[in-house]
Amino acid sequence: MMYTLPLGFKLAVANANFRGKNLPRNDLALLLCDDNATATALFTTNVFKAAPVLCSQQNLATSKNIRAVIINSGQANACTGEKGMQACLKTQEMLEKAFSLPHASVLTASTGVIGAHMDLTKWEQAIPSLENSLGSVSLEEYAKSIMTTDAFPKISYKKIEKNGKEIIFAGVAKGAGMICPNMATMLSVIFTDVKVEKNVWQEVVKNAVKTGFNQVSVDGDTSTNDSLFALASGKSETELDKDELQKIISEILQELAYLLVKDGEGASKVMHITVTGAKSNEDAEKIARTVGHSQLVKTAMFGKDPNWGRIIAAAGRAGVSFDPNSLTLKLCGIEIFKNGQPIDMDIDKVFYSHLEKVDINVEIFLQEGSGQAHLKASDLSHDYVSLNADYRS
Amino acid sequence: MMYTLPLGFKLAVANANFRGKNLPRNDLALLLCDDNATATALFTTNVFKAAPVLCSQQNLATSKNIRAVIINSGQANACTGEKGMQACLKTQEMLEKAFSLPHASVLTASTGVIGAHMDLTKWEQAIPSLENSLGSVSLEEYAKSIMTTDAFPKISYKKIEKNGKEIIFAGVAKGAGMICPNMATMLSVIFTDVKVEKNVWQEVVKNAVKTGFNQVSVDGDTSTNDSLFALASGKSETELDKDELQKIISEILQELAYLLVKDGEGASKVMHITVTGAKSNEDAEKIARTVGHSQLVKTAMFGKDPNWGRIIAAAGRAGVSFDPNSLTLKLCGIEIFKNGQPIDMDIDKVFYSHLEKVDINVEIFLQEGSGQAHLKASDLSHDYVSLNADYRS
Repeated sequence: MMYTLPLGFKLAVANANFRGKNLPRNDLALLLCDDNATATALFTTNVFKAAPVLCSQQNLATSKNIRAVIINSGQANACTGEKGMQACLKTQEMLEKAFSLPHASVLTASTGVIGAHMDLTKWEQAIPSLENSLGSVSLEEYAKSIMTTDAFPKISYKKIEKNGKEIIFAGVAKGAGMICPNMATMLSVIFTDVKVEKNVWQEVVKNAVKTGFNQVSVDGDTSTNDSLFALASGKSETELDKDELQKIISEILQELAYLLVKDGEGASKVMHITVTGAKSNEDAEKIARTVGHSQLVKTAMFGKDPNWGRIIAAAGRAGVSFDPNSLTLKLCGIEIFKNGQPIDMDIDKVFYSHLEKVDINVEIFLQEGSGQAHLKASDLSHDYVSLNADYRS
Repeated sequence: MMYTLPLGFKLAVANANFRGKNLPRNDLALLLCDDNATATALFTTNVFKAAPVLCSQQNLATSKNIRAVIINSGQANACTGEKGMQACLKTQEMLEKAFSLPHASVLTASTGVIGAHMDLTKWEQAIPSLENSLGSVSLEEYAKSIMTTDAFPKISYKKIEKNGKEIIFAGVAKGAGMICPNMATMLSVIFTDVKVEKNVWQEVVKNAVKTGFNQVSVDGDTSTNDSLFALASGKSETELDKDELQKIISEILQELAYLLVKDGEGASKVMHITVTGAKSNEDAEKIARTVGHSQLVKTAMFGKDPNWGRIIAAAGRAGVSFDPNSLTLKLCGIEIFKNGQPIDMDIDKVFYSHLEKVDINVEIFLQEGSGQAHLKASDLSHDYVSLNADYRS
C-alpha cells in the first residue's frame, strides 16, 4: 500500500552502519516538519534515562521550534554518562546544520545495546545520504529503518474527511524486545496534519497511551529509551472535536500496541488478559501483569498447553488479597474454573483448536469490587531465548 | 555417601504411578517419626493454597501428635476445591490407618499439575509398598522420590557432637520450576534428633527461611503448594544453644536454596545478586528481584554475554527511586559501571572466562542508605522453555 504522508512532513533515511557489520539496511531515520510542529512526547519511567531521552525532554521544555525527530538504531546511547549527553547534543547540531534548522529543534531517540558510546564519525558520514533521500522516502521505508529485532514494520494509518478537507494520521513503532512500557512507551512516532492546540494535543496523546502502549508487555523489561513522539503540522488547516481526535489517536496507539506484542521477540501468541471485579483498578492491573509476565503461563501458551492452573497460581501470587472462592476463569471464552472450583472437562480436547490461534483470551472475574484492567502480553518461546542470548553477537 | 538418619525417624517410598505413565520411579515418600515430633512448617503465601497446604495447616494448629509427612509428586491437588480437600483428608486417614497413627498426625504435601484431581485408587494400591519399604529407605532414595523435573536430588546433611552425644540434621528439597518462594518455600523437609522446644524450633526455622529459600528465584512464580516441614524427634536427648541451632538450620536451608537455583529448570548459571546502599532493605530487595527476574538479564547470562546494560536497566525500572549517578555495578567482581558512568574496557575480552563459570556475582552499590539484599537467581535457557512448554505432555 502507498501511504500519502500528512501535509507538511518529509521523511529521510540512511545507512550509517551503526552495527558495524555493513548490513544492507537503514539505521537512521528522520522525520522533518516544514514549519514548527505542535509537539508532545512521553518517555520511559526508568531511573536510567538514555541521553537522547534527556536531550529531547530538554528541547521540549525550552524550545518553541520543534521541527524534527531523528531516530537511530544500533546504538542506544544509554548509561553512557556525560560523554553520551555531549554526543547526543552533537548529533542534534549536525542535523540542525545540515537541514538549516533552528537551535534545539530536533528531538532524538536511539535504540540498541546499552552502554556503548555513539560513533560520531558514522553520523557525519551518513548525513549526506540522509539529505539526499529527503522527500523520496515512503512511510514503509521509514518504519523499516527504525527496526531492530522486529520481524515486520509497524504502521497505523488513518485518513478522514472533515468539512471537505482531508486529515491524515500516520503512526510507526519499533518494538520486539525490552518491552513493557510503563507510563511512557517504546520508540514510536505519530505525525499528522491536523490543526490542534498544544495543550489539547498533550492531553489526547497522554490519554491514548494509557489504553495503548501501557497495556502491553512482551518481557516486563521497561527500557531506558522508551519514547513516543507526536507531531502535528496543522497543514490540513482543519481542527477536530477533541473527542473525535481522542478516538483516532487512541485507535492508532492501540493498533501499534497490538503489533508490538504480536511481533514480540519470538512471540507466537498474543494473550488478551482482562481482569474484572477486583477491589480497585490497581489490584486488577497487578493481577493482569502478574499473569502476563509469568514465565510459566507464557511457556504454556507457547506450548499450546491448556495448563490453566498456572494462570490461577499467577493470579494468586500477584500480591493482591481476594477470596479464592470468588475467582472465575475463562480461557478462550470457555469457563474452566468457577468460584474457586475447577470445571470437569477433557481440557486437551476442549482447548485443542482454540490454542492453535494467535489471539488467546484470558478472562479473570472476581467479586470484590469494580476494578478492572486489560493487558496484551506475548508468550515465551525458544526464539525469545535465542534472540536475547545472542543479541550482542 | 551413606547417610545415617537422625534417631527416631524412618523413611518409606512407593511408586503409585500418579503420572499414569508407568515410569520406573517412586512418587510417594513418607517420613515417619517413632513418637510425636516437635513440628513446625511454613507455607506458600499464594492466595490459592493447595488442599494439602490447608490440611497441614489445620493439623499443625489443632493436633498435638505430629508423626509423619507424606509427599506425593505427579498430582498437585491445587485449585481442586472442596473435592480436593476431601481427597486430601482421605489420604491422611489411609496413612493413619496403615501405620497405626493417631488422628490428624500426618502432614501432607503434593506437587504436580495444578487443577487435576487426586486418584485415590492409586493411593490405596500404593500403601502396601509404602508399608513394606518402611525403614529400608535411604536419605538419597527419599530425596529422589520427591523429585519432579529436578535433575538431581537435593540433600543437606550435618552431624555434630555435643557433650559426647551425636546430633544429626537432614534436609531434602524438591525444586526446579514454579520457584520463587516468598515467606514460605517450596517442598522441603528437614528432620533432626536434636531436642528442642516448640517455640524455639518455630523461631529458628522461620529465621532460617529468610536467608534461605526466600532469597532464591528461578522463574518468579510462587507456587500454590510451597511447603517447608521441620520435625525434631528429640531422640539424641541433647539440646543446643539457640544461636548454634540457628546457624546450623540456616546453613542447611541456604545449601538447599543454592541447590534449588542450580537445578532450576534448564538453569546453567546461578547469579548471586547483592544490592547494598539502598534507602531500605525493601528497596534493595525490589532491585535484586527485578534484576533476578529480568528475562533479558537471564537470557544474557545463559548466552554468557556481558551485556551489563540490561542489569542497569532492570535496576532502573524496579520501582525504586535513587540517584542514577549513585550506582556502581560489579559483574564477576569487576567494576564495569561507576557512579552512573560506564568504564571503558573490551568487555568481551575481560569477561569471557568469568562468564564460563556457573556462579556469577552481580553486585550493585548505591549511596542512598544502608539497605541491602541478596538473591540467588537462575538464568533462562532453551531447556526452561522446552520443559515448561511441554510439561503436561
